[in-house]
Amino acid sequence: MNKRPLILVTNDDGIHAKGLRVLSEIAKDFGDVIVVAPNKPQSGMGHAITMTKPLRMNREKIDGVEAWSTSGTPVDCVKLAVYEIMHRKPDLVLSGINHGSNSSINVIYSGTMSAAVEGAVEGIKSIGFSLLDHEEDADFEPAKTYINSIIKNVIVNPMPSGSCLNVNIPKGKLKGLKICRQARGYWEDSFDVRVDPMGENYYWLKGDFVNLDQGEDTDIWALDNKYVSVVPTQFDMTAHHAIANLNSWKL
Amino acid sequence: MNKRPLILVTNDDGIHAKGLRVLSEIAKDFGDVIVVAPNKPQSGMGHAITMTKPLRMNREKIDGVEAWSTSGTPVDCVKLAVYEIMHRKPDLVLSGINHGSNSSINVIYSGTMSAAVEGAVEGIKSIGFSLLDHEEDADFEPAKTYINSIIKNVIVNPMPSGSCLNVNIPKGKLKGLKICRQARGYWEDSFDVRVDPMGENYYWLKGDFVNLDQGEDTDIWALDNKYVSVVPTQFDMTAHHAIANLNSWKL
Repeated sequence: MNKRPLILVTNDDGIHAKGLRVLSEIAKDFGDVIVVAPNKPQSGMGHAITMTKPLRMNREKIDGVEAWSTSGTPVDCVKLAVYEIMHRKPDLVLSGINHGSNSSINVIYSGTMSAAVEGAVEGIKSIGFSLLDHEEDADFEPAKTYINSIIKNVIVNPMPSGSCLNVNIPKGKLKGLKICRQARGYWEDSFDVRVDPMGENYYWLKGDFVNLDQGEDTDIWALDNKYVSVVPTQFDMTAHHAIANLNSWKL
Repeated sequence: MNKRPLILVTNDDGIHAKGLRVLSEIAKDFGDVIVVAPNKPQSGMGHAITMTKPLRMNREKIDGVEAWSTSGTPVDCVKLAVYEIMHRKPDLVLSGINHGSNSSINVIYSGTMSAAVEGAVEGIKSIGFSLLDHEEDADFEPAKTYINSIIKNVIVNPMPSGSCLNVNIPKGKLKGLKICRQARGYWEDSFDVRVDPMGENYYWLKGDFVNLDQGEDTDIWALDNKYVSVVPTQFDMTAHHAIANLNSWKL
């Protein structure tokens, strides 16, 4: 990248989230920034796209950058940015900074990470950032040095093919950074069943994360030990290790 | 599985789709079936879960099986089925039969496949089925022999760890079945911009699929050549091949 990079900043917490503003400020040091983000919280939207209704877009005011809110999902935002607003692929997609962890299996539910994965699908260098702090006014200061260093590295190095980066950052003082794999884990869910005034049940999803992975090379281990975790994340979902096995089945 | 398996059938086209009814009929030959499916089409919902509002469920009538529709996404349906309706993990999750292809990169946008992947995340043997025919009254007859054989194999064989199966079936006469990898490809999108009666723009997502992969071991190749494609599909999104490379960066 010889000329000033064009950078798309998006997220899943919505256009008004503090994490988005912080990331957009950081991004300005690296290139020309356009923000395209959902007009409402879109956490847990995974890789959803909007097919059964049309999308809306509105201009928004964010200091020193062109900004748009959309009625769509984070992945819709990437598509609208690339194909309708920029009319070209940006040099970099930055998604976040998410308020809350996207480590382990959360990567698959995460709108933040799905936006980054969509960037990778479209052949754009992409990074998703998450801070392990759900607070609206979370403190992103300790994270900034690492975010700067990661963006700088992504700009100068070729991105490993078919991948983007999933960066999670512990709250508070940080010990360093580890390249990791996604820890094996899942959500042991339950539903909070309530009865509405009409006497009908409704169901709130809740759950507890279960870590099945004691590996010290995982994102969960790194985060538990106050390291920033960086997981190269790919969109090829093929379980290549299973192909030989399946070929032995009587299909 | 010595006793009669408990089978969850779900989809993303909704409780009224023909493909769901056909799959539920097939499933009855293999075990006790419970259908839990969205109450409206949920194509393209990816791995979305519903976090910002509660879910609703209603009993539905489908011949010879217990059936529920829900206001949620396909992944919500799996969670409601496991944690609220069955109160245990079923032995098998069958998702589909989708009206339309979920080959190549479509796996990541697909509600059908996300339900199967969610099953795998929860440690349940899971299969997503899709027929390359969008028609409401699509002909599933030629597919049935293959679907039966695949379900039978999944019941008797251990599923390769951390994976489920993504089965796509061409329309019409079939030549056989191939174990494949997900072809590399993406959607070259565009937006159909229209103006509403208030003078405001709205944007319909559309696009053309671009296949970047000439490999004869891909799902796209198999389908183009009238073979059923079976891709083992995993939820570990780590780009393991990239870890050594990233460790050489100056982070």
